[in-house]
Amino acid sequence: MQLLKDKIITEGKVLNNSILKVDSFLNHQIDPLLMKEMGEEFARRFQNDKVTKILTIEASGIAIAVMTGLVLNVPVVFARKKKSSATTEDTYAAEVYSYTKAEYNNVTVSKRFIAPGDNVLIIDDFLANGEAAFGLANIVRQAGCNIVGIGIVIEKSFQPGGEKLAGAGYRVESLVRIASFENNQVNFA
Amino acid sequence: MQLLKDKIITEGKVLNNSILKVDSFLNHQIDPLLMKEMGEEFARRFQNDKVTKILTIEASGIAIAVMTGLVLNVPVVFARKKKSSATTEDTYAAEVYSYTKAEYNNVTVSKRFIAPGDNVLIIDDFLANGEAAFGLANIVRQAGCNIVGIGIVIEKSFQPGGEKLAGAGYRVESLVRIASFENNQVNFA
Repeated sequence: MQLLKDKIITEGKVLNNSILKVDSFLNHQIDPLLMKEMGEEFARRFQNDKVTKILTIEASGIAIAVMTGLVLNVPVVFARKKKSSATTEDTYAAEVYSYTKAEYNNVTVSKRFIAPGDNVLIIDDFLANGEAAFGLANIVRQAGCNIVGIGIVIEKSFQPGGEKLAGAGYRVESLVRIASFENNQVNFA
Repeated sequence: MQLLKDKIITEGKVLNNSILKVDSFLNHQIDPLLMKEMGEEFARRFQNDKVTKILTIEASGIAIAVMTGLVLNVPVVFARKKKSSATTEDTYAAEVYSYTKAEYNNVTVSKRFIAPGDNVLIIDDFLANGEAAFGLANIVRQAGCNIVGIGIVIEKSFQPGGEKLAGAGYRVESLVRIASFENNQVNFA
């Protein structure tokens, strides 16, 4: 997606060999028009898949997921992240490790909001090791739902998440794929 | 806003005399079309106020803020909530008490994303005691910005937040105001 590539080139900051900072338009400050265009692109890619629900994870996935849900005319559910692993009877839960923050989060979704028969599109901002995506997929499977696919804004294809998800049989649609960072430059795949 | 009132009547759950659960369309599952209509309503109310930036707080404020930002054509910044009060030179911070969760959060915004000259519209999902709104207003003032107003989805007008904010000179625009909960029913103001 060229618009997103341009934004990454002009505003993204390569912090080291694996971290790209995009907090000026994606995960702290948000560019609403870019969110809308990304939502429309995800909706276009999954328009024939009878999506009934979108699942994302707080906080950075919400804006894109809601824009996608607006076009596909389906509700969005955002999974909650908690430090503690207080599980209840009312929620599906999965443990997700964040390499960036070096911590485990317990990710939960109320059982009232995904149910057997749902065709779920998972959306997240980044794909690196695949931890969040596998956690969300785990929750969808616990609920007995079908996973239509996984929509990712920025995939770092030099990290193993994309291959692991494909290997597990999931369809992954990434708006941009980054092959490497070199000399503070982004090389797209 | 009638659409929102209808949604609260049909889907909201009064848990006790002060808590209204709206997680089926606002703060866990999200209704994208409702978010769009609420964003358009906030944009209409603040259309002549030369808003240059919208500030909200993760996670429930993001969807509405982004829809408002889309119409007003301005960036959205979401403040981050952390348990720890690790302040840095790079962020503005304010301590916010959550009565619902009975805990303090340190709310932070990067100094790169609000700057003197900005006309900031603050948006949040609930207004009860005003803690979050005052915290965000505190951050905007630290940044030397003007506060155009505070847009609230659901104000519980039987709690003191609205009056306290008005008393402090802030313009508060609430999409619905709830006067009381009685016998598991919502009485609008």
